[in-house]
Amino acid sequence: MEMDMNVQEKKAGFFQRLKDFPSKLKDVVTKRVKNVLMFGKDDPRRIIHSMKVGVALTLVSLLYYVRPLYLSFGVSGMWAILTVVVVSEFTVGGTLSKGLNRGFATLTAGALGVGAVHLARFFGHQGEPIILGILVFSLGAAATFSRFFPKIKQRYDYGALIFVLTFSMVAISGYRTDEILVMAYQRLSTILIGGTVCILVSIFVCPVWAGEDLHKMVANNINKLANSLEGFEGEYFPLPEKISNETNSCVREYKSILTSKGIEDTLANLARWEPGHGRFRLRHPWKKYLKIAGLVRQCAFHFEILNGYVLSNYKAPEEFQNKIQEPIATMSREAGEALKAIAKSIKTMSKDTARVNAHIDNSKTAVGNLRIALKSSYPETDKDLLEIIPGVTMASILIEVVNCVEKISEAVEELSGLAHFKETLDPKILSAEIGQHQLLHRGTVKPVLDGDNGEEDTDSSPHVLINVHDEQPPATTGKNSLGVEKNIV
Amino acid sequence: MEMDMNVQEKKAGFFQRLKDFPSKLKDVVTKRVKNVLMFGKDDPRRIIHSMKVGVALTLVSLLYYVRPLYLSFGVSGMWAILTVVVVSEFTVGGTLSKGLNRGFATLTAGALGVGAVHLARFFGHQGEPIILGILVFSLGAAATFSRFFPKIKQRYDYGALIFVLTFSMVAISGYRTDEILVMAYQRLSTILIGGTVCILVSIFVCPVWAGEDLHKMVANNINKLANSLEGFEGEYFPLPEKISNETNSCVREYKSILTSKGIEDTLANLARWEPGHGRFRLRHPWKKYLKIAGLVRQCAFHFEILNGYVLSNYKAPEEFQNKIQEPIATMSREAGEALKAIAKSIKTMSKDTARVNAHIDNSKTAVGNLRIALKSSYPETDKDLLEIIPGVTMASILIEVVNCVEKISEAVEELSGLAHFKETLDPKILSAEIGQHQLLHRGTVKPVLDGDNGEEDTDSSPHVLINVHDEQPPATTGKNSLGVEKNIV
Repeated sequence: MEMDMNVQEKKAGFFQRLKDFPSKLKDVVTKRVKNVLMFGKDDPRRIIHSMKVGVALTLVSLLYYVRPLYLSFGVSGMWAILTVVVVSEFTVGGTLSKGLNRGFATLTAGALGVGAVHLARFFGHQGEPIILGILVFSLGAAATFSRFFPKIKQRYDYGALIFVLTFSMVAISGYRTDEILVMAYQRLSTILIGGTVCILVSIFVCPVWAGEDLHKMVANNINKLANSLEGFEGEYFPLPEKISNETNSCVREYKSILTSKGIEDTLANLARWEPGHGRFRLRHPWKKYLKIAGLVRQCAFHFEILNGYVLSNYKAPEEFQNKIQEPIATMSREAGEALKAIAKSIKTMSKDTARVNAHIDNSKTAVGNLRIALKSSYPETDKDLLEIIPGVTMASILIEVVNCVEKISEAVEELSGLAHFKETLDPKILSAEIGQHQLLHRGTVKPVLDGDNGEEDTDSSPHVLINVHDEQPPATTGKNSLGVEKNIV
Repeated sequence: MEMDMNVQEKKAGFFQRLKDFPSKLKDVVTKRVKNVLMFGKDDPRRIIHSMKVGVALTLVSLLYYVRPLYLSFGVSGMWAILTVVVVSEFTVGGTLSKGLNRGFATLTAGALGVGAVHLARFFGHQGEPIILGILVFSLGAAATFSRFFPKIKQRYDYGALIFVLTFSMVAISGYRTDEILVMAYQRLSTILIGGTVCILVSIFVCPVWAGEDLHKMVANNINKLANSLEGFEGEYFPLPEKISNETNSCVREYKSILTSKGIEDTLANLARWEPGHGRFRLRHPWKKYLKIAGLVRQCAFHFEILNGYVLSNYKAPEEFQNKIQEPIATMSREAGEALKAIAKSIKTMSKDTARVNAHIDNSKTAVGNLRIALKSSYPETDKDLLEIIPGVTMASILIEVVNCVEKISEAVEELSGLAHFKETLDPKILSAEIGQHQLLHRGTVKPVLDGDNGEEDTDSSPHVLINVHDEQPPATTGKNSLGVEKNIV
């Protein structure tokens, strides 16, 4: 009886599932389609690239569809199709690199192959395959070995591959055909047609420049650092009313930089194949971007360690926190502003040294203030010393971050010279902007050191004004910063 | 006159250079050849791989040279050559992944292509190219778009490429030939022959397994960390008689780990295509290796920051240095030993939990001692506090490193369970080895805290013995470690 019930239940369940199947299928399909559309919307260039490949394919298929073209190229037209599929890369640099590599490798390997066939024919019908075999083996092995060399691997890997391919094909098929020259000519010309179609479509239909991508990526990474830096205060000294999840994502933005070296290297490598375009000339200093990216990554390493401290919730005593909060907040805010100015200067390709240096100087002054605050938070007992260690570590890693920001700014300065960044706008506008900027900052300078969180509107009080404008780096004017520090505390 | 002299001088210089040319050319060529040989010796598998490609090429060229084979396959034999050149990858995983992708993609795209040609023929001679064009455009664009999805890009990128290629070729050339089925059959069979030859050569002639490479790479990276950690003491507290350049390279060994993510991901991805081999079964937990590698990299980030401190030469006062040297030395040495034991356990695929845990416990004890040393180095003035900040930072980053080492050990423990590492040898041998080990260590425990660097032979004094053996992590036995601390200071 029980078994019968079971069977019946199973049957009912099966029919139910069968009934639900269409609606479930619909749900799954709708979800998938939505995902795909979202993915396309994320970067519409992906959709455009797919269309471009379709167009290039359609264009070369005319070699088959149009009778006069078919009569002159015959089945060799398929090499054009093969070339289009293989050479079509997302970026112009990728397409050019593959197209040129394929073209030159086919030309040289084709010529060598024809030579090899003629050489082998001297050795009679018996000796021909042996000579050809030896040549194919040795040249194939040598070219394959050459692909391991880093320099060749970086720029000519595909060329070496096509070299082996073409040489083997020409040499081996030369054994069975006498029309080797006609075949070689047809193949070479169709490959050139395919490659040219690809390159033209890639350059003239919504081009995606690897160089521009690298340029934007480096600027974006600097912006990410800036966001992480500016989010840091909120994370380490959370205000009671703020929900910590809000700033969370912002502070973690640096994460993607830790492992972006591979993409940057690839983009820089492809950018070198690209002709001048837009604001970039032919010999744009792409290697400098890699240097900047390296420094940015160095800075991100520091964040990774800092983040461990923020996450560990291993907080120092409140009194100590209060003492260091103000200089740390100023320091990270100003360093963040400097990074934002640097990123903007890269994005707009215009020099903005004055603004960047002003922010860096401000953050260095804050470093001086931080040192003074640390000095003044001399622990009363040995237990206190142990408790402030995490705070001290955090502070000195942040100081290192300010050094990193300075190095980044120097590297961008170098780039701006080599890449002929335009001089910045009207200096009057600039100074007005900086003034406004500092005014905005003044609003956020909270005299928390008094332990008074409620007093938010002190931007009109004169001593804070003096603080922002007259400060110099601590090394040169120790007395001044000491005075300022007394004003704040 | 002067001009004549100049011309004569130039001539003489030219002839001299012409004379020197052969010897210079010889020098350059010798140097190049030496370089190439060195490069080959560096990793002989490169030479073997090149030979393997040559052998595979020679094998498939028999399709042309042997008359009966040529009669059955004809010029389609060139697809076998093409397949061999393109599919031959350095690792077995790479070859399998490309070969299987190529095989399946050709099969499905070929079938679809034949279907498309038959469908198009319903629309008459006028409509045929239009229908074919639409189909090629839309399937080509769709498959190209699919290559952007991370999951497809990671495992089936090559398959999608070959899909577009084969479908376009079959569909387009189907317009001009009636023997499309014969053509498709010949092409598919030669591609299968080429792929099979490649895969067989790759697996049975000196195979290079991506999985084994990943396995070794992770173990080596852990060893590199250990070396950096053990070299750290010599770098930060250099003995006067030691030349600092000696340890330099050792401390920097971690550098390559910072950017090794790309290679690790690729190897793990290829390893999943490989059949069981040697000590690795079919479903070996390759993903766990990536987890371990991530933790190792996290640890390397800490070294990068530490290295900044060592490089900056921003030394703390000598008295403070002397106080923290002993626990820091023990801590880094023991953590290094733990890492070495972990690396060895991975390399030999045998569990060695007891030894690893013993070293980790020792290093944790040293962390406790370090905390005590820090506490006891309570600064006398506020100026002193500022001076010990770099030392404090360095110490607390090192403490984080010990935490990292513990996490690595836990991850490897997980791996050892999943990958069925064999249980370790005879426990008697192990305990004897550990005893010997600790005896060796005792010899290097220098009671520098007394400021007496000359007293090297104190390993027989009982209080140091107690120190090494009886200590527990400080959190549980604060009293004990305090007592020990009194003993030492």
